[in-house]
Amino acid sequence: MSRIAYVNGRYIRLAEARVSVDDRAFTFGDGVYEVCEISGGRLIEEERHLARLSRSLAAVRLAQPIGKAALRLVIREIVRLNRVRDGLVYLQVSRGAAQRDHGFPAADVKPGLVIVARSLDPAALAAKAAAGIAVITLPDNRWGRPDIKTLQLLPNVLAKQAAREKGAFEAWFVDAAGFVTEGASTNAWIVTSEGALVTRQADETILHGVTRAALIDIAEELGLRLEERPFTPQEAQGAREAFVSSATTIALPVVSIDAMPVAGGRPGPLVAMLRRAFREQAPRS
Amino acid sequence: MSRIAYVNGRYIRLAEARVSVDDRAFTFGDGVYEVCEISGGRLIEEERHLARLSRSLAAVRLAQPIGKAALRLVIREIVRLNRVRDGLVYLQVSRGAAQRDHGFPAADVKPGLVIVARSLDPAALAAKAAAGIAVITLPDNRWGRPDIKTLQLLPNVLAKQAAREKGAFEAWFVDAAGFVTEGASTNAWIVTSEGALVTRQADETILHGVTRAALIDIAEELGLRLEERPFTPQEAQGAREAFVSSATTIALPVVSIDAMPVAGGRPGPLVAMLRRAFREQAPRS
Repeated sequence: MSRIAYVNGRYIRLAEARVSVDDRAFTFGDGVYEVCEISGGRLIEEERHLARLSRSLAAVRLAQPIGKAALRLVIREIVRLNRVRDGLVYLQVSRGAAQRDHGFPAADVKPGLVIVARSLDPAALAAKAAAGIAVITLPDNRWGRPDIKTLQLLPNVLAKQAAREKGAFEAWFVDAAGFVTEGASTNAWIVTSEGALVTRQADETILHGVTRAALIDIAEELGLRLEERPFTPQEAQGAREAFVSSATTIALPVVSIDAMPVAGGRPGPLVAMLRRAFREQAPRS
Repeated sequence: MSRIAYVNGRYIRLAEARVSVDDRAFTFGDGVYEVCEISGGRLIEEERHLARLSRSLAAVRLAQPIGKAALRLVIREIVRLNRVRDGLVYLQVSRGAAQRDHGFPAADVKPGLVIVARSLDPAALAAKAAAGIAVITLPDNRWGRPDIKTLQLLPNVLAKQAAREKGAFEAWFVDAAGFVTEGASTNAWIVTSEGALVTRQADETILHGVTRAALIDIAEELGLRLEERPFTPQEAQGAREAFVSSATTIALPVVSIDAMPVAGGRPGPLVAMLRRAFREQAPRS
């Protein structure tokens, strides 16, 4: 079966899915994106993902490429055409194709929209959740607005590759004051010795993770103590548990940070519980 | 006449020049670029541009997409096919097309290479040089390595657009200490009341402009005093002259900064002299 992409109004085989060399995502990284999990053929946390997309578009002054109802339909059609039961849908909006010039293009240049979907292996993810992951830390050298889900991802690419080369799954960025901001593609969490759940406050320094918000809801329902504040790699190394969250990983236990074992190098119970609760409770549509 | 682009080994009409939606420049801004001036049908400062390209590629761990001799030939062919006498050639290298994953793709994924060229109107540029340009200032919120000529350009896009909306041609980024780093697409210069040329030192905070380096050579030949150090917008507002440099603008006088006139609001003599000297002396090939 050929995979199918939606590209600027057309459904087309992924192998032939192309955009103009003048697309501003290609020349300037001038665009925003979303990644939404598909589980059992349904979209997880669709409302929050679409709300965040609207926020990202507004933050970089990009127009909605198609109406929201149409967008929901196209996303479903791409999931269906690619027969994705468990996996992800990726959508990206750019400021359109126009002769290269830093300032915004003329008003008649339409935003570009690309949507793809693909399957992920739930067993592979479950194995990661069972074994836990290693994390390294690196100075946060991203631009000033990582809270907007833009294509300004080269520092994340370099950080993720650095992690991989050290046998780690994720790199945590550390700000100038020595506090963890977030991972290259995940939010960062710890559990204190008192059992409090800690994750950095959602200001301009981190992505406002949809899964992060969903896990906060779950923690509140469970009556867990939540502290939205920064923490250092040292505090994380000494924490009862540490974990990362994102749409495609949900919550993965961190068992080492910069080669130092966390929580005896074994996944903890709280992240496992949050993971299960998310699977049961997260809205599907 | 159709414009022609070089895309991954093929010469193709620009209107049909496309890249995969999986190209990492499109999804991550994972690539680097160069802009080289064409004057009288010849490349200006070709050696420095190609040397900087090699430096950019190495800095982000990207392979040279084709051999240097082949690259020189393709650049010339694109200039010829587009009949550019005065204008620019733009070349961009990406980390190739591969299923989206932050870490580097498999070793057999080849870098992507796109080259385009277009004419610019020398009269329009001369008019700007005669009238001078307005500049605004904005906080520098770019990532930590603007010295590498990467596609991480969304902050530059937003800054340039902010300038345009205030009737200005350029936005100067200002660092946390209050010093100008550089413009959204140009380096920044002033002339002090003692006649010294001042431009920020080429460290990790600014692009190492080819035209910047060429103007420094010229200043040294002319026996001008040169200070490579930071300056504030306030010092620039009180300077004898201020100007910006880039491959396509060479050197343009700044006549206002944040709506305050510089040097009586008129272009100064030193920038005009540097402009002429560059035109006469810069290597053509």
